[in-house]
Amino acid sequence: MSRKPNPDINLSEIVAVVRQEMEEHIGKGKVANYIPALSRVDPRKFGIAITTCDGQTVTSGDAEEPFSIQSVSKVFALTIALERVGEALWSRVGREPSGSAFNSIIQLEHEHGIPRNPLINPGAIVVADVILNERDPKLAITKILEFLRTRADDSSIQIDMEVAQSEADTGHRNTAMAYFMRSFGNLNGPVYDVLSAYFHQCAITMNCVQLARAGLYLASSGTDPISGERVVSEARARRINAVMMTCGHYDASGDFAFHVGLPGKSGVGGGILCIAPQTASIAVWSPGLNAVGNSLVGSLALERLAQLTGWSVF
Amino acid sequence: MSRKPNPDINLSEIVAVVRQEMEEHIGKGKVANYIPALSRVDPRKFGIAITTCDGQTVTSGDAEEPFSIQSVSKVFALTIALERVGEALWSRVGREPSGSAFNSIIQLEHEHGIPRNPLINPGAIVVADVILNERDPKLAITKILEFLRTRADDSSIQIDMEVAQSEADTGHRNTAMAYFMRSFGNLNGPVYDVLSAYFHQCAITMNCVQLARAGLYLASSGTDPISGERVVSEARARRINAVMMTCGHYDASGDFAFHVGLPGKSGVGGGILCIAPQTASIAVWSPGLNAVGNSLVGSLALERLAQLTGWSVF
Amino acid sequence: MSRKPNPDINLSEIVAVVRQEMEEHIGKGKVANYIPALSRVDPRKFGIAITTCDGQTVTSGDAEEPFSIQSVSKVFALTIALERVGEALWSRVGREPSGSAFNSIIQLEHEHGIPRNPLINPGAIVVADVILNERDPKLAITKILEFLRTRADDSSIQIDMEVAQSEADTGHRNTAMAYFMRSFGNLNGPVYDVLSAYFHQCAITMNCVQLARAGLYLASSGTDPISGERVVSEARARRINAVMMTCGHYDASGDFAFHVGLPGKSGVGGGILCIAPQTASIAVWSPGLNAVGNSLVGSLALERLAQLTGWSVF
Amino acid sequence: MSRKPNPDINLSEIVAVVRQEMEEHIGKGKVANYIPALSRVDPRKFGIAITTCDGQTVTSGDAEEPFSIQSVSKVFALTIALERVGEALWSRVGREPSGSAFNSIIQLEHEHGIPRNPLINPGAIVVADVILNERDPKLAITKILEFLRTRADDSSIQIDMEVAQSEADTGHRNTAMAYFMRSFGNLNGPVYDVLSAYFHQCAITMNCVQLARAGLYLASSGTDPISGERVVSEARARRINAVMMTCGHYDASGDFAFHVGLPGKSGVGGGILCIAPQTASIAVWSPGLNAVGNSLVGSLALERLAQLTGWSVF
Repeated sequence: MSRKPNPDINLSEIVAVVRQEMEEHIGKGKVANYIPALSRVDPRKFGIAITTCDGQTVTSGDAEEPFSIQSVSKVFALTIALERVGEALWSRVGREPSGSAFNSIIQLEHEHGIPRNPLINPGAIVVADVILNERDPKLAITKILEFLRTRADDSSIQIDMEVAQSEADTGHRNTAMAYFMRSFGNLNGPVYDVLSAYFHQCAITMNCVQLARAGLYLASSGTDPISGERVVSEARARRINAVMMTCGHYDASGDFAFHVGLPGKSGVGGGILCIAPQTASIAVWSPGLNAVGNSLVGSLALERLAQLTGWSVF
Repeated sequence: MSRKPNPDINLSEIVAVVRQEMEEHIGKGKVANYIPALSRVDPRKFGIAITTCDGQTVTSGDAEEPFSIQSVSKVFALTIALERVGEALWSRVGREPSGSAFNSIIQLEHEHGIPRNPLINPGAIVVADVILNERDPKLAITKILEFLRTRADDSSIQIDMEVAQSEADTGHRNTAMAYFMRSFGNLNGPVYDVLSAYFHQCAITMNCVQLARAGLYLASSGTDPISGERVVSEARARRINAVMMTCGHYDASGDFAFHVGLPGKSGVGGGILCIAPQTASIAVWSPGLNAVGNSLVGSLALERLAQLTGWSVF
Repeated sequence: MSRKPNPDINLSEIVAVVRQEMEEHIGKGKVANYIPALSRVDPRKFGIAITTCDGQTVTSGDAEEPFSIQSVSKVFALTIALERVGEALWSRVGREPSGSAFNSIIQLEHEHGIPRNPLINPGAIVVADVILNERDPKLAITKILEFLRTRADDSSIQIDMEVAQSEADTGHRNTAMAYFMRSFGNLNGPVYDVLSAYFHQCAITMNCVQLARAGLYLASSGTDPISGERVVSEARARRINAVMMTCGHYDASGDFAFHVGLPGKSGVGGGILCIAPQTASIAVWSPGLNAVGNSLVGSLALERLAQLTGWSVF
Repeated sequence: MSRKPNPDINLSEIVAVVRQEMEEHIGKGKVANYIPALSRVDPRKFGIAITTCDGQTVTSGDAEEPFSIQSVSKVFALTIALERVGEALWSRVGREPSGSAFNSIIQLEHEHGIPRNPLINPGAIVVADVILNERDPKLAITKILEFLRTRADDSSIQIDMEVAQSEADTGHRNTAMAYFMRSFGNLNGPVYDVLSAYFHQCAITMNCVQLARAGLYLASSGTDPISGERVVSEARARRINAVMMTCGHYDASGDFAFHVGLPGKSGVGGGILCIAPQTASIAVWSPGLNAVGNSLVGSLALERLAQLTGWSVF
């Protein structure tokens, strides 16, 4: 069964409405300031790009301005890790919401070094360890970068080395979680190498157009509908979407499902990738974050978009 | 946009296949034994009923044998409470997954008496308090029972008074949670009355046909497609489904979304209500529970059904 | 080996010095206000009484004004329960500090209904259950009251019935903990009866002179040095003191040991019983509480007293 | 006021009795096996040494055989850190029992990187950071070693470099805690340097005679009664003893106080330093550990010694 865009929907008009309605909110929220490169970003930026399964792309605002994708990268790293080790991945990381206002190192201790899901930091570090596979971290970083370039059909995508270095310099909590998981035997590669791969992955820079294009395989049953290439099996694409739905927004995942009704993954750089299954891949970007660390205006824009298009899966 | 059953799908055939495949699993799992009435249930029972949005009903197995719906009732109680107080409900109960292998009284303390969501026990007790509205608990119980009779279009639905009494006799932990929330000011009615309403609600007896029929408004945008009656707004129906998706299976909600890809709510009596939005309402029943307290065979049957029908929302 | 007061010490002079030094602090802290009877107490009250093992009594301030002993009663209830069931008590309650800024219901869940120690609320409720022994709560209350009258050699000691009723009316959190322990099978008597005994025990009214006199058996190896009566064995007296040292001031027990260096037990009414082993029993009272719920001026007075007398056990 | 040994006590006889009574227990418990050097130790070893405040030394068993003092070193490091920064230390580390069966990284998160006390691992890492003072870790290690050599009046005391290296190789959990505290700003020196100092401190090798001698200043009001040297003020000595009493045996500190009634600090190498204030410093060693990680036979020996001498502070 496929869900095609309602022919009555004029996507360009809807996007224009959404953007206009966001005007009053632009600039709200708090730009991430734990590293200089993020804190310098103009809080008034707002971009959106939608690529539909039939190949149409609609954009608005700063859709072609690059930003740091940060945790949005976790969805793609999860895809790569699942392709490498298959369902065996789930013996090392769960797929349940973290569901705690408290930071996940508590959960790691209660659950003996097994992170709750691959979309929170410790889970993504395990995923990076799987991709690293005890080899040179440069190979792992290249693998992730190449995956994104291929999926976005754009070889210009780069890693922001200043961001990567800043992440490493300030990443004491991530380092703590990596050593903690190692003490439980749930990290194989050297901590330094695993974190290097992880920090570089978070420092990838993309724009909304590239990001929406890159996520399209998740909206179309695992096949890139434009190139025709099968990226993952249909079952795997659906399951990745399921994990995004229940775990993609940290401890506000339930809230995002409630308001937007679509699988999505946010990053602290203000980007959100959102999947309308069988219909479209959506990327929004606005740097101001809400209290739980997700893009404030981006979340509002997606809620409104889902209302106007009727794309909610519920 | 509507998602209608694929015309290629012969639902009766699919249900027959699912039932046959479940044969090898029938009897697995552990029947709830904390009260006598539940422990006496034959572990080899299996029933399934599907009611589609266009009014077709397909059943198999013990679909007309009554069972204790237990926590499945929480979805209907949530509906009633939302109709009574609207979105104000969310100031007294969250909508995030509980996400903890540990029992929720810990979360209640950390989060000052606000339960994580309305589908875990303390959240459902708050919902019962809202429905009770400080009046006679019999009125609250009648309200819930009448709602289910109307939705299932079957006035024969009853409360099993032996189950209700047993719940009250053994419900020390629920009583503890009720008093604990009261200590934070998040319970208005007398604890005894609120729990009485809650325990009776859990003791409602239905069969799969009644349950699937009763949930149909959630599959069709809030309107009962058979009677044409609007039960809740479209937005509310979607949001209830979203809460079921992220919170409907306790600390295995992520797992259910991963495997089945549909909003659902399980009960310790072995029943699961599952919604395929715009398509169908499904009820399965098999008393043996898996390690996390959800129907073992019921979960497998729904996973297989979703695969064969392609009804996953992802 | 005995530790007798240093002959150079003039206890009356020291007490006069302590009282004078406290003048600048009198009135500091926050009087308990969760029940009316406590909130009405004048925050400027300060009393102290010391009874030495050789029968001398020194007092100052409001030493003969009655106050609600509240949790100080837990030491005497522990004594009674140990005499009733002996060391078997420790299978139902631990003797480790609770050590958490978070309320102990979290600990109860982690440790399956076994409270950390008998001097925190859930532990004292288990102790009350042991004393109750499934009989009439009036018998339990009488037993505790008679013990205190005998130990203080003063039959005028009473229960403040207004306080007892207020405790019952507002004790939702204690009720929650009682039901929670019952759900783990760690409460034998009816919850209502156990709590009734507990709330009445907390509502006992004594003055500093009575309280210091009542605790004297703990300062003199389990024997009342004035009447010559053996109350508990020497080993038991020492062990009760040990529990007071490590657990007597909730999550500030380490701090009290650090500053005062003597076993003690505080109550929310502003009283503290403090034992100088082989030397003296001390009672102070000042209603203003510090941030952790112990008498602010009382703690300071005991610290200064220990410095001037050299009574610290360390 | 001083507490001198009861003249009736013949310490040599008592020690002989204790040792004989321990015969039936020798070999019980589980020798630490997380590093090879510890796992190789003969579980049947038992040594005891007592040095009294008047300079008498009594020994029995393997009292002159060196062992790894491990966490016993934390008492001496605490002394050095307090001398360096005074009471300001307490802004970076608490003095309350950890009071949790769960590992302390949970507490670190709840309490924002401030360890509960200086005698648990994260607290001792903060203490090492204070001693390190952002300088060469070799200076910190030398400072601790020299302190122990001076206190034990024995310049032959060494660090076991194999143990130090093994600690570093397996110390992922300690490394995690160090990075975690750094993320809260509660670690000034480089993590590698702080841990190097900490791991070397734990790898110091001493025998019972040396250890009892080294701890004597804590038994005699801060002054070494043999050399006459003041090591710390009387108030500080008492306070260190208080911290040992409430926090010296991890989550069995209450139990140790209950059974032994003296301040003490255990190490995973099987050693325990125990202080009888104004009376004696005691060191026992027996490698087999009980379920909570303290020397099984050592604890029993101290309990019996305290009974026979009457040295309990309670």
